[in-house]
Amino acid sequence: MLIVADNLQAARPDIYKAIEGFDAKPIQELVVRCLRAGIDAIDINPGPLKHDAEKRMAFLVETVQEVTGKTLFLDTTNPVALEAGLKAAKNPVVINGFSLEPKKIEHILPLAGKFGTEIVGYLLLPNGHVPPGYEERLNVAIELYTVFQRSGLPPEKLIIDPIVVPALWEDGLAQNQAVLSVIQTLPDVLGRHVRTMVGLSNLTTGKAPLEKKRVLEMAYLPMLAYSGVSAILLNAFRLDTVRIARSCEVLLSSKVFTWQEIP
Amino acid sequence: MLIVADNLQAARPDIYKAIEGFDAKPIQELVVRCLRAGIDAIDINPGPLKHDAEKRMAFLVETVQEVTGKTLFLDTTNPVALEAGLKAAKNPVVINGFSLEPKKIEHILPLAGKFGTEIVGYLLLPNGHVPPGYEERLNVAIELYTVFQRSGLPPEKLIIDPIVVPALWEDGLAQNQAVLSVIQTLPDVLGRHVRTMVGLSNLTTGKAPLEKKRVLEMAYLPMLAYSGVSAILLNAFRLDTVRIARSCEVLLSSKVFTWQEIP
Repeated sequence: MLIVADNLQAARPDIYKAIEGFDAKPIQELVVRCLRAGIDAIDINPGPLKHDAEKRMAFLVETVQEVTGKTLFLDTTNPVALEAGLKAAKNPVVINGFSLEPKKIEHILPLAGKFGTEIVGYLLLPNGHVPPGYEERLNVAIELYTVFQRSGLPPEKLIIDPIVVPALWEDGLAQNQAVLSVIQTLPDVLGRHVRTMVGLSNLTTGKAPLEKKRVLEMAYLPMLAYSGVSAILLNAFRLDTVRIARSCEVLLSSKVFTWQEIP
Repeated sequence: MLIVADNLQAARPDIYKAIEGFDAKPIQELVVRCLRAGIDAIDINPGPLKHDAEKRMAFLVETVQEVTGKTLFLDTTNPVALEAGLKAAKNPVVINGFSLEPKKIEHILPLAGKFGTEIVGYLLLPNGHVPPGYEERLNVAIELYTVFQRSGLPPEKLIIDPIVVPALWEDGLAQNQAVLSVIQTLPDVLGRHVRTMVGLSNLTTGKAPLEKKRVLEMAYLPMLAYSGVSAILLNAFRLDTVRIARSCEVLLSSKVFTWQEIP
């Protein structure tokens, strides 16, 4: 299970400021902190990037690469910034991501072919909304997979994200139960194994005590792992969540157990 | 999901001493501490009870009942002590438990009928050994269920324990993966829903840092919950484990989520 840190995002004021001022230090400090937590990859989410998008995205990728050789997830809806990031990338890279929204199919998906990278496909409706339940997500998955294959890319380059929603949504619990079922049944539905990824932090979106967010994440994560999810995008600063993720891997492995594997 | 505290056991030196000396105070203090952690039931494990077994078991049951009206699991292999405990019980009570071992079928199982109580049935071989894998556990389940039905008790009185084993066993991880599958498939195999229970503390048996035990438990528990386990016997002093258990219930419920439900 690939653990991807979601911490490097312009939604954080310190990171926003660092991107604005081309200031590498706060970015690299954050990345190093994520690395110490034991993550496998880092998501780079620069926000809308209204000006100098190419320059700023390239700066971000280069800045992160100076401190790690781990996989980068380029998490932007701006195709110009994305392409600049892909050009700057020396590390393994994943486009995060496309969906059935026409502009994503038109402008984002082709970049995966052009740069030969992996790409995350969100199970969202063509209008960008979240499908209401299990069946609808599977229908979107079939359509997304068809669109993906039509682009000529091999299936192993696709990572499907079935969209964890905030628990606080009126049907949040039912939707996140559907996510687990989708992860479990997707190989049967698509007739082959396709990797999956979820954004765990979505679960606890909204105002709540940090301690409760932490507990809810730790309860849901092993269910995702047991369902067979391939990658989890999470807040690496919640160290117990990362430790639980690693412990899940061990519990579901075919190894002989030793305590040394538990962080 | 019923949360059952496993803390009241004679393996603890203070509890052993309290049982020896008919000293209610340490026992009640321990029970109150478990209650504060938010448990639903308490397991009473008095150890072998070599002398005055009846008197000591009755003392234990009465002592616990003075501080709680919650369900008691009477956890002894001594049928004489067990019967004394059942006689003393005013709270709801569960016998914990029987298996295919001939002496258990002969001496323990009939007490469930005599006192009209629920009973835990362990998926152990007739020689008391743990079945090596998934298939063997299912075969034992079918035999145990047959024996149970032959005793004339209604199926809703049975709680099946598929036996979590120490992760440290050579095949510990595979066995505990089999436990998850058994819990999931048991309704299909038996042709009806039968409740299940596991002893979570078994997973981390052996010498290891407490923090690692805690993390491993927290990673495995949600997998049990997602598989559909009905009850978990656990160390209630590990407060995060109890909180994770409660959060799992919420995540798997059909409620509308509120943060108030997360402890």
